[in-house]
Amino acid sequence: MEGQMNGAQSLVKTLVGCGVDICFANPGTSEMHFVAALDSVTELRPVLCLFEGVATGAADGYGRIAGKPAATLMHLGPGLANGLANLHNARRAATPVVNIVGDHATYHLQYDAPLTSDIVGFARPVSSWIHESKSAKTVAADTARAVQAARAAPGGVATLILPADTAWNPADRAAQALPDIGPAKVSADTVEAIAKLLSNGKKAAMLLRGRALIGDGLEAAGRIHAKTGVRLICDNFAPHSEPGAGRVTVERIPYFGEQITAFLAGTEQIILVGSKPPVSFFAYPGKPSWCVPEGCELFHLAHPHEDGAGALQNLADALGAPAKPALCTELQLPDLPKGRLNSYTVAQVIAHLTPDHAIIADESNTASLPLLMTLARARPHTHLPLTGGSIGLGLPLAIGAALAAPGRKVVCPHGDGGAAYTMQALWTMARENLDITVVIYANRSYAILNYELQRVGAGTPGANALAMMDLHNPEMNWTKIADGLGVEASRATTAEEFAAQYESAMKRKGPRLIEAMT
Amino acid sequence: MEGQMNGAQSLVKTLVGCGVDICFANPGTSEMHFVAALDSVTELRPVLCLFEGVATGAADGYGRIAGKPAATLMHLGPGLANGLANLHNARRAATPVVNIVGDHATYHLQYDAPLTSDIVGFARPVSSWIHESKSAKTVAADTARAVQAARAAPGGVATLILPADTAWNPADRAAQALPDIGPAKVSADTVEAIAKLLSNGKKAAMLLRGRALIGDGLEAAGRIHAKTGVRLICDNFAPHSEPGAGRVTVERIPYFGEQITAFLAGTEQIILVGSKPPVSFFAYPGKPSWCVPEGCELFHLAHPHEDGAGALQNLADALGAPAKPALCTELQLPDLPKGRLNSYTVAQVIAHLTPDHAIIADESNTASLPLLMTLARARPHTHLPLTGGSIGLGLPLAIGAALAAPGRKVVCPHGDGGAAYTMQALWTMARENLDITVVIYANRSYAILNYELQRVGAGTPGANALAMMDLHNPEMNWTKIADGLGVEASRATTAEEFAAQYESAMKRKGPRLIEAMT
Repeated sequence: MEGQMNGAQSLVKTLVGCGVDICFANPGTSEMHFVAALDSVTELRPVLCLFEGVATGAADGYGRIAGKPAATLMHLGPGLANGLANLHNARRAATPVVNIVGDHATYHLQYDAPLTSDIVGFARPVSSWIHESKSAKTVAADTARAVQAARAAPGGVATLILPADTAWNPADRAAQALPDIGPAKVSADTVEAIAKLLSNGKKAAMLLRGRALIGDGLEAAGRIHAKTGVRLICDNFAPHSEPGAGRVTVERIPYFGEQITAFLAGTEQIILVGSKPPVSFFAYPGKPSWCVPEGCELFHLAHPHEDGAGALQNLADALGAPAKPALCTELQLPDLPKGRLNSYTVAQVIAHLTPDHAIIADESNTASLPLLMTLARARPHTHLPLTGGSIGLGLPLAIGAALAAPGRKVVCPHGDGGAAYTMQALWTMARENLDITVVIYANRSYAILNYELQRVGAGTPGANALAMMDLHNPEMNWTKIADGLGVEASRATTAEEFAAQYESAMKRKGPRLIEAMT
Repeated sequence: MEGQMNGAQSLVKTLVGCGVDICFANPGTSEMHFVAALDSVTELRPVLCLFEGVATGAADGYGRIAGKPAATLMHLGPGLANGLANLHNARRAATPVVNIVGDHATYHLQYDAPLTSDIVGFARPVSSWIHESKSAKTVAADTARAVQAARAAPGGVATLILPADTAWNPADRAAQALPDIGPAKVSADTVEAIAKLLSNGKKAAMLLRGRALIGDGLEAAGRIHAKTGVRLICDNFAPHSEPGAGRVTVERIPYFGEQITAFLAGTEQIILVGSKPPVSFFAYPGKPSWCVPEGCELFHLAHPHEDGAGALQNLADALGAPAKPALCTELQLPDLPKGRLNSYTVAQVIAHLTPDHAIIADESNTASLPLLMTLARARPHTHLPLTGGSIGLGLPLAIGAALAAPGRKVVCPHGDGGAAYTMQALWTMARENLDITVVIYANRSYAILNYELQRVGAGTPGANALAMMDLHNPEMNWTKIADGLGVEASRATTAEEFAAQYESAMKRKGPRLIEAMT
């Protein structure tokens, strides 16, 4: 870059200097200088999305796998609004995201032009940090702060609002990266106190999340289990886990409150490592929301912003645990099924054929129980679920994961109702030629709601109520939709057809969609 | 309904009693009792949408045409978040909308379950009124207030947040409708003062919006023109206008600031009737944002919450204007074109063939200039544009308009970039068998951004910048996408093909999509 840079160039150059090398974008007029700057600093890879919810969900998937933030680029308040639901998911997953939102030029805001809105207001519910630059001269420094804020343990959405004139006016220079605000160290006193608890003879469980649930943290938890027999458990929607053969086995807490209560029955103490106490996802009349057994005590080894993985290692050492973990999963692949295609046979095919170290970007929802049970004993893989519960994340999440881990196969098992929210994501998969296999569970229904209507005690549904859950009229045809968006697709109606199509998808690289008629 | 009702039933019954008879819904678990209540009070028509942005955009279209609110039904904060961009558009159009958002049961919020979020925070930037019910016993009264707030002149988004236990707990009874907070009467003094201004010999324009731009208001403006020669103008994105043959002619203010300045050159006084002063849509370096000519004075005949239509009638009488308007548009249909298909020939076909009193749900964006110019002299119709500037409104807007006016043909000319935002709307068009003809301008580009990149002075774009505007890789195929979502579709590559396909669409009822390869 020669001569003086403008604010937009200082943004892009600072992002790159801070280690941000990808930007999921859906820009508009007010972001045109930022778009132009992508050509003067080419180390930042721009990925175009047809809808902002795709961009933010992709940033979530990228951040979960890469362990560092992607940037987004969105068009004023309404563009941000379209991205909010998946930023909610990212917030719940504590994913680092540098969320960049263009705005009108500072002097234009007073005129309340049609696209003017309260951007800070839109951003607040999802952001751990918000700042609006007022001058091109501060954009670089503000950007460095945004990256630092996004990365600050445990990770969060840092929203940087950039009025158009801060892009086109002259800036001085890029800013240096700021030091990481890493996870806080857990005190020796706390480790010692928990070590004592694990030796008190009470029935204990350790609830793991974040970095405590993967890599070195998980290994240390397995060592602690080897020494103490403590039960290792994780949230149903833990944002990032590593199940499969050879890995330390962690039991997943079930979805419904009464199942959680049964799962935890008899537990006398729960050690929280980067997690919160278990609660039910929704409230139901007469059913528990708080799922900790009566009399069970709760203790924190590490809060989410603390170094849970390090604390587990120190705890293992303090306990004199063996050097190797116990409780490692043995490979147990199901046979390839025949006959009827349903959520069980789909799960068997996926578990049988998915290669080592695949990433499962999972929005299988009502089909998740057989899938997770079967995959848990299959080849080692990474599991990324719908942590915040806002459907329409799976396809974008797969995009981000695929870009963060180019050598790994990404599999995206997805309910049809949720996939309809962000179907535009298929286009970006094709555009970037990403190695993603999407499996649509085509049950033509908001299947979860059929359960839920009964669980909430809303009585026998009539025609109007049933119509609010049924997606048969008309039937979506996912092979046509995918074809229209540039992704090769096919439909499977039997287990054999699904296995053949899934096997061919695993053998090749590139985007592929299979509509499983379940 | 027999026996005691629950909160959900009191909601639905109160809505119906307050004149709300349609609900655009995308419900979830926390709204199941509301869904069940749709069967006990069947006068409220539920319309299922596959994405919340479709529901809110449809509510905008319904409210603009019906002049009364539709309800929405959305799933907690993230569901609302998905609907915010089109609620932004509704806010800018001052459309009445009763925006109903479910939430966790009141006692469940303390546990911060995954879907918990700051719903009031999400709602605030788009809402003129927000309330969260805390008890089933108040739901009916709160609902009556929400309808009153949505209808209060000039109309707005009233957001009612209903925790799940306010739905399932017992309620007393439905609430009566509250009196309308209609538009405030403009004082005789103001009318007299404006009458004097229009007789002072200065070059004047009246800028009309809202009810001043349609029906009796427009007629009165035509009478005032007949007496005084005042120029009649309206905003480029006026939410609801009635152009075409036999109607009083109103000049539409152009889009770009320098065009507005030229359009208004020499104007010495502007009378605002329900509108704000003209400003440019975006800011550009070195170009004007404020577009009122220097020295031109601004006067309000009516603010947006005031009765501009009534004030125009009083003003016409005060001026002794003739009983009939002048400046009525003569029918001037273009010939059917031949040869190349582009935004001009598309416009000629639409203008030639669209029947009387059609509704144009318009998101033609870069193709709008030839369309609006040609349609202005075609058969009388209603025009609904993208008032808030947030793309992805057109298809949902058409749904709402078609449901509000069952006997009228709805035409939806739409850019491909914007249509990709809410393509799920096609499914609801098919499900409800709505009489909508969608015309996709398939230019495979965010065409507007090609202009804008140059206008903002961002230099010659390189490969990265161009890639952010180009939608060729891969090419979306709208006939396949529409087919996959249940809507009959065809592709036109010449003017003759387009005319034949459009003519057949005009002759039949039901949903139809034409992909115009422009």
